[in-house]
Amino acid sequence: MFTIHDMDEADAIERYVTEGTPESAAIVGGGYVGIEMAEALSARGLDVSLYEMLPNVLQPFGEAVADVVEDHLRDQGVDLHLDTAVAGFAGEGRVDEVHLDGGDSHSADIAIVGVGVKPNAALAENAAIERGPTGAIATDEYGRTSAANVYAAGDCAEDFHVVTGEPEHVPLALTANRAGRAIGQTVTGSPTVVGETAGTAIVKAFDLGAARTGIVDEERARDAGFDPVSVTITDATRPHYYPGNEEIQVMLVADRETGAVLGGSVVGRDGAKRIDTVATALHGGLTVTELQNADLAYAPPFSPVWDPVLTAAKVLAGKLER
Amino acid sequence: MFTIHDMDEADAIERYVTEGTPESAAIVGGGYVGIEMAEALSARGLDVSLYEMLPNVLQPFGEAVADVVEDHLRDQGVDLHLDTAVAGFAGEGRVDEVHLDGGDSHSADIAIVGVGVKPNAALAENAAIERGPTGAIATDEYGRTSAANVYAAGDCAEDFHVVTGEPEHVPLALTANRAGRAIGQTVTGSPTVVGETAGTAIVKAFDLGAARTGIVDEERARDAGFDPVSVTITDATRPHYYPGNEEIQVMLVADRETGAVLGGSVVGRDGAKRIDTVATALHGGLTVTELQNADLAYAPPFSPVWDPVLTAAKVLAGKLER
Repeated sequence: MFTIHDMDEADAIERYVTEGTPESAAIVGGGYVGIEMAEALSARGLDVSLYEMLPNVLQPFGEAVADVVEDHLRDQGVDLHLDTAVAGFAGEGRVDEVHLDGGDSHSADIAIVGVGVKPNAALAENAAIERGPTGAIATDEYGRTSAANVYAAGDCAEDFHVVTGEPEHVPLALTANRAGRAIGQTVTGSPTVVGETAGTAIVKAFDLGAARTGIVDEERARDAGFDPVSVTITDATRPHYYPGNEEIQVMLVADRETGAVLGGSVVGRDGAKRIDTVATALHGGLTVTELQNADLAYAPPFSPVWDPVLTAAKVLAGKLER
Repeated sequence: MFTIHDMDEADAIERYVTEGTPESAAIVGGGYVGIEMAEALSARGLDVSLYEMLPNVLQPFGEAVADVVEDHLRDQGVDLHLDTAVAGFAGEGRVDEVHLDGGDSHSADIAIVGVGVKPNAALAENAAIERGPTGAIATDEYGRTSAANVYAAGDCAEDFHVVTGEPEHVPLALTANRAGRAIGQTVTGSPTVVGETAGTAIVKAFDLGAARTGIVDEERARDAGFDPVSVTITDATRPHYYPGNEEIQVMLVADRETGAVLGGSVVGRDGAKRIDTVATALHGGLTVTELQNADLAYAPPFSPVWDPVLTAAKVLAGKLER
């Protein structure tokens, strides 16, 4: 048996293909990579099992959204194992079996491991450049590191969180792209701040879109000094009479004392990009009441009169008043 | 001949149906009603002509978006007459002909007139309740009129514009719905502000969605004391390699001095609800640079790395620097 820890840390996604046509796949980790691979391999006709160590897939999206995604994964035929840690794999030169922490083992022709991202800051470490609290390279608002004239951007570097103002590690494409562009402008003579991150993310899970922004987790909110209050609503993307109407869930979190929106998540067959409204509210420092009063676009082909984000804000505002 | 002005002002949409099966329709007015009716009647197989007095349909959406919609209307077989005022209709007990201001006439079996909305404030007028600068009933932030204990909401009443702070008349569903709800709370003992309007609107035009928010018109911006700078970009709703990728146009307007976002519009086969990001930016008082730095959601099924709204903000920020 070989374990996940035998694998190269910096290259967390590895693939072991059988000779012949694979018929089953074991996916370890129910994040973006795991869910996208579950969809892709199911589309190729493989029997897919997904093992997630935590109680939910997509943990950073909150339990309400994760529950919807999990039901959908099962509906699509994915054999979902939550609270299930994988100990390692067995096989000779290829994978035959997945061994679970409890001692069980399942057969699989392919294994895909996508268990998160750690910043590769070895280069910085060797150069005695400071790492921040997240383990990624510490930067200031211009992307400057602790070494003069050395900047860092992308998956190796920290950013600042728009809600907490604290260093954050968000290894996603827009974060990297934006920081690279800002640093490019700064070093060529036009000082440009990198901009804060909200940790906004979106993922396709078969027929669903799921998205998140800001602080979704109540414990995380409390750690940051907030008194979080949250709601999850089930709504529709259009008026009931309009064709193409789909169910959508919106979860919002706010601070009881200030009413500030802290974060949220969205899941549905359509309209997960509505998370951008919540993300923009975070950048604008809106309270729940201000978000509830935002003048969003309505016409029956596009939205109910109250966009689901507004309805979530309305319900949350009511909860904050109590 | 009878003229549009013979019709009841308060009931601006009238329909004159022929005996037998109508084969052609004349639509007067290229706003929401006109465009939605053009689509509906085309779907029923009628030859549709649309007459618009102004140089563009959807004038409040700005010329760039209107141009895209006009091309699409023509592609869909609508006989579009811009800069064309209708003088009246001829026929005995029904419409036979549309007479244009210049003297031309076109035959039509149906005529639909949707030439805008005027507040019906007669009741208020008779009660000596004040009307505001827009002609609608003047209200304060709680929807109170000039008469004690009399509130006004909906298409007859004014709201306040989120960008200018000035009274505005926005006869749309969300505005009315929200004001009614807030006033209901206020009169039952929980004083609740109505909230400001951005004049956000969205309309389906055959296969396109078009949307607008805030101040789109540069002349209007100048009248409100701003020095407007605007851009229109053509972008894609997804990365080029991803299925379902569609063209999208985003127009943004900002104030040169403060960099504040003033408004914008969007048009495309998909993604017109992206206007909500711009609307939320208006409610948050974001500058173009702050909007450019908003952390919006990216994954290939949903967006390019830089959402088209971010790209528009980036281009506009570049223009503001010059």
